[in-house]
Amino acid sequence: MPQKNRVTLSPMDRPIHNETPFGPANAGIDPFALFEQWFKTAMETDPNNAAVMTLATAFNNRPSARMVLMKEHSPDGFVFYTNYESRKGSELAENPKSALVFWWPAQERQVRIEGHTTRISAEASDAYFATRPRDSQLSAWASAQSSEIDEPISLEAAKAKFKDDPIPRPCSWGGLQLVPERFEFWQGRTSRLHDRIAFIQKNGQWSPRRLAP
Amino acid sequence: MPQKNRVTLSPMDRPIHNETPFGPANAGIDPFALFEQWFKTAMETDPNNAAVMTLATAFNNRPSARMVLMKEHSPDGFVFYTNYESRKGSELAENPKSALVFWWPAQERQVRIEGHTTRISAEASDAYFATRPRDSQLSAWASAQSSEIDEPISLEAAKAKFKDDPIPRPCSWGGLQLVPERFEFWQGRTSRLHDRIAFIQKNGQWSPRRLAP
Ligand SMILES: Cc1cc2nc3c(=O)[nH]c(=O)nc-3n(C[C@H](O)[C@H](O)[C@H](O)COP(=O)(O)O)c2cc1C
Ligand SMILES: Cc1cc2nc3c(=O)[nH]c(=O)nc-3n(C[C@H](O)[C@H](O)[C@H](O)COP(=O)(O)O)c2cc1C
Repeated sequence: MPQKNRVTLSPMDRPIHNETPFGPANAGIDPFALFEQWFKTAMETDPNNAAVMTLATAFNNRPSARMVLMKEHSPDGFVFYTNYESRKGSELAENPKSALVFWWPAQERQVRIEGHTTRISAEASDAYFATRPRDSQLSAWASAQSSEIDEPISLEAAKAKFKDDPIPRPCSWGGLQLVPERFEFWQGRTSRLHDRIAFIQKNGQWSPRRLAP
Repeated sequence: MPQKNRVTLSPMDRPIHNETPFGPANAGIDPFALFEQWFKTAMETDPNNAAVMTLATAFNNRPSARMVLMKEHSPDGFVFYTNYESRKGSELAENPKSALVFWWPAQERQVRIEGHTTRISAEASDAYFATRPRDSQLSAWASAQSSEIDEPISLEAAKAKFKDDPIPRPCSWGGLQLVPERFEFWQGRTSRLHDRIAFIQKNGQWSPRRLAP
């Protein structure tokens, strides 16, 4: 019988002083606007981490998840950049159904987003790639993301190839955009009395409903 | 054409000073021991958030994900507590395949775990439930987690029911344990030259392999 390691601390054990009720009455009817408001607040307290999100994909009904960075958001969707031939890239090409989670500890807020993920245009990917630091551009060429390798990757071959020339975007690298079909906004409160508001889309209209915490 | 909100800051834009190479040579052969070591380090810097993890489930090949708290970990698995009739509870009853993600920003470390989730024993759930604050115990009775409700939940009915009696665990509430089949340890480094080590189980033995970042 292996030893069990127990964890006693948790963020929910802290006293939470957010007692402003949050519900369908003040959530509004536009989940994108509410996201923007919550995201802005999170950026004010933790600009380095507010855009970090978990991306969940599924293949043969087997979920997998990893952190990625939101680089753009608008009513068109939530954009991140990756290698299209990575595990997530191939899973999404096969099955676009996917989910995102943001967790902002300072505000005790969680946002869950579900929908389908599609590629952004080659032009938009080119434009973003051009803004990246040169070493990151080289690493997009040097790394066949998620493949097995024997040694750490090195940028030397890519450096020798491009010398001082501008580095074009590899075709295997670019933006993906999750187009939301469902949102959920979670606001922590004491004694597990958290407020959860889901937004479901029906005939192009979003409607908020409260869920039990 | 909706307005695009661009995010320029990211945790990866910070200079990362972790240049100790991390690879199969120093990752060891026991992913549980490595997890324990990384988790301990994360607890030292951020005890309130180190045990927070994303849980991904899948239903009909549609992934969903949310934050939960790891309450116990051992070679038996990674335990969290929840309502068995919640969305995650019913998805896992239908399809035990699931995934966890930890993200520890201070160390620039990510751990991904994939496997299947099963219920822990009723005795173990009872024992943990008994340690919870009384209001959290009441809320387990008061909240049919994830069902649609019209008003915020209230603890009054449950309070009136139990008065000053000890509160038993509701059958619908208890522990779930993810039993790992695959681990991945990710250590951030500059210029996207991150180290990724996956552990796959074969004939009861774990073996580490390096993945391209
Ligand atoms: C905070 C953080 C942000 C990350 N952002 C990205 C990203 O924007 N795009 C990306 O491809 N990988 C990103 N990664 C790495 C991924 O977590 C993952 O290791 C990689 O995308 C390969 O995943 P896959 O094998 O599932 O395709 C990030 C990792 C961390 C910890
Ligand atoms: C930091 C954090 C920790 C949480 N821990 C748990 C937990 O341990 N168990 C749980 O059931 N829900 C927990 N929740 C709430 C879940 O994210 C989610 O709202 C709830 O479990 C219902 O999810 P479901 O509808 O997918 O079943 C936590 C939320 C946050 C933000």
